[in-house]
Amino acid sequence: MTRFICPSDARSWVEVDPLSHFPIQNLPFGRAQVGDDVLTVSRIGDWIVDLSKFGISIDLERVTTQELSDARETLYRHLVRGSEACPDRLVAAAEIAMLVPIRPRAFVDFYSGIHHASNVGMMFRPDQPPLLPNYRHLPIGYNGRASTVFASGTEIIRPSGQTKAADAVAPTFGPTKELDFELEVGFYAAPRDESRISIASAEDNMLGLVIVNDWSARDVQRWEYQPLGPFLAKSFGTSVSSWIVTLDALEPFRVSSMEQDPAPLDYLRSSDSRAFDIQLEVSLWPAGASQSTVISRSNTRYLYWTFAQQLAHQASNGTRIEQGDLYASGTISGLEPDSFGSMLELSWRGTKPVLLADGSNRTFLLDGDELTMTAFAQGDGYRVGLGEVSGVVRPSTSL
Amino acid sequence: MTRFICPSDARSWVEVDPLSHFPIQNLPFGRAQVGDDVLTVSRIGDWIVDLSKFGISIDLERVTTQELSDARETLYRHLVRGSEACPDRLVAAAEIAMLVPIRPRAFVDFYSGIHHASNVGMMFRPDQPPLLPNYRHLPIGYNGRASTVFASGTEIIRPSGQTKAADAVAPTFGPTKELDFELEVGFYAAPRDESRISIASAEDNMLGLVIVNDWSARDVQRWEYQPLGPFLAKSFGTSVSSWIVTLDALEPFRVSSMEQDPAPLDYLRSSDSRAFDIQLEVSLWPAGASQSTVISRSNTRYLYWTFAQQLAHQASNGTRIEQGDLYASGTISGLEPDSFGSMLELSWRGTKPVLLADGSNRTFLLDGDELTMTAFAQGDGYRVGLGEVSGVVRPSTSL
Repeated sequence: MTRFICPSDARSWVEVDPLSHFPIQNLPFGRAQVGDDVLTVSRIGDWIVDLSKFGISIDLERVTTQELSDARETLYRHLVRGSEACPDRLVAAAEIAMLVPIRPRAFVDFYSGIHHASNVGMMFRPDQPPLLPNYRHLPIGYNGRASTVFASGTEIIRPSGQTKAADAVAPTFGPTKELDFELEVGFYAAPRDESRISIASAEDNMLGLVIVNDWSARDVQRWEYQPLGPFLAKSFGTSVSSWIVTLDALEPFRVSSMEQDPAPLDYLRSSDSRAFDIQLEVSLWPAGASQSTVISRSNTRYLYWTFAQQLAHQASNGTRIEQGDLYASGTISGLEPDSFGSMLELSWRGTKPVLLADGSNRTFLLDGDELTMTAFAQGDGYRVGLGEVSGVVRPSTSL
Repeated sequence: MTRFICPSDARSWVEVDPLSHFPIQNLPFGRAQVGDDVLTVSRIGDWIVDLSKFGISIDLERVTTQELSDARETLYRHLVRGSEACPDRLVAAAEIAMLVPIRPRAFVDFYSGIHHASNVGMMFRPDQPPLLPNYRHLPIGYNGRASTVFASGTEIIRPSGQTKAADAVAPTFGPTKELDFELEVGFYAAPRDESRISIASAEDNMLGLVIVNDWSARDVQRWEYQPLGPFLAKSFGTSVSSWIVTLDALEPFRVSSMEQDPAPLDYLRSSDSRAFDIQLEVSLWPAGASQSTVISRSNTRYLYWTFAQQLAHQASNGTRIEQGDLYASGTISGLEPDSFGSMLELSWRGTKPVLLADGSNRTFLLDGDELTMTAFAQGDGYRVGLGEVSGVVRPSTSL
């Protein structure tokens, strides 16, 4: 396919702060609720762009990756400095309610953050090597619950569940005491008409990236997850950011993927760089506190398996990939404790409380906590960002 | 809710064979493709009933359990002997293409067949007790891929995947050599407007039952499934029968559920009989053979957890249940080898080939094999059946 890479020195007639996630180099896509209408929109700086007002007619539930790339180029020509300015076609972003970019029919969660997988292995299976024998041979993943993929800003009600303390004789039922987040990045699929998606063509079947928070109840998870994997510990909600950021916009931030040893099988092997250098940050704002605290800084470089490998693997059994399928990376933890992508790891299963700016500390999330994840790639004088995904924890409603 | 239980001695003006699954005591619901139209239909004997021709207007993607019960009673009054006969409103079932009753947005597969769980535990984890400690405390389940839930009759293309023989140093990629079926029964949900579905109200949130074949690639499953559960080994296809059979129709076939020891926690506890006596049968018809062979006879009585318990558990974390969610039981195996619900168990992991009527034998499924499951409850002189779900295995299309 033909991709459009925006010049790094391009500037728009719209004023954009250098720290904004949305310069003319980005031009992401999302869906806005305006009255009873759902509009396909883009964003530049602090402004929302109604694509229809620029003659661009796309529907994220039907568009191909090529059509999205073309639409982005058309929009660029309207917004670049020197083109005819039409400020009345922009609306302040703060006034617009954004929806989930696409409501997926399939949501798959991979497990490609190798430091996270190692940490969890150490904690959940202390008697075995932290990584199971299959980990370096295939991108481990599982199906999540697509119908509870929520827009950023959706409140998360503390889930209940069955848990069993290690020293208890029987389980009990009640609100989770170990509510957690998981820092992930995901891609939306848009399958082209081909018999099977290969590793070489995988990225041509992706609309772009979003930030994903895979909320988790760790005490529920420990008790329920064997032998068939996470279920109610994660099905109560997954939050995604509002903007699909195209791989075109992220092209300048390609880096080599992690070294893979042993070499993957042919259907997962590619010679070129398919990883990205995207900085990730997690902050926690307790109810009533005067400020938030950054509790983790990580990077998509810590993914052992690339997005392209994930999709090639997903497609390898012959399963049809559908428009708007959401594939999340798994939790992205760095090597150092301040780069871990979950409370489970940051507090090392509750043994090392995390200190916050207001003097309180956390092992897991409390009611009223607002958890926000942001992600951006740093260019020379500009950033291409994924925006943010946030959610406030509300008390359990169980009887 | 008000339920309609058809008298066991009722007869229709439509002639129905005593062995038919669809006497007037059944009156199930499904969707038929007729030209470009999708019709909501019922069935009596060998005839399809277009509900709109009887003034009944329902949409399975929106209908409540109460509305479905009412529609069934209305239809009964039209079809019972003595009412005004309207044979021209019936169409021969053989001429109609049936669709999936509802395309689910969520598909969950439980693991409630206790003999199956024991058998798989013995085979996959020979060094541990066959049932894990959580099994008798909660209905273990996992999310499947809702977008590959197929109608009965859909051909199943042999999936490919990564596998590793126990004595191999590295995995390989290719078509599965251990294609299997799983004999299950599932229910479609139709949530009422209540804050949380309880065990007492669970059945009021179910439209009815279908037969489910959860196709599986065992060699892929063994290598991929730890630690996050089955993924590509099952995501390539799940087949469901064409007719949603209401719990009203199955009411005469209630039996006590299996004894549960230890007693389940309150949110899973109910005093009355929530299990059903439904006979299950699996037959295999090799390509070119002159007849099929029944390879398994089982019964829904072998489910440790009831459908009501499954739904109450699913809802217990606060996750919204959505219209048309499909919840499958897990493989239903009996105690005896000829009642096992999968080739994995019938051939005991390939060590005991299953002899077929044509003189051939099977450890797992071969290309060309047609696998058919049927299910019915036996009344006095009539049967209430779920119909059948079938699929033919086609060769791998991988390059």
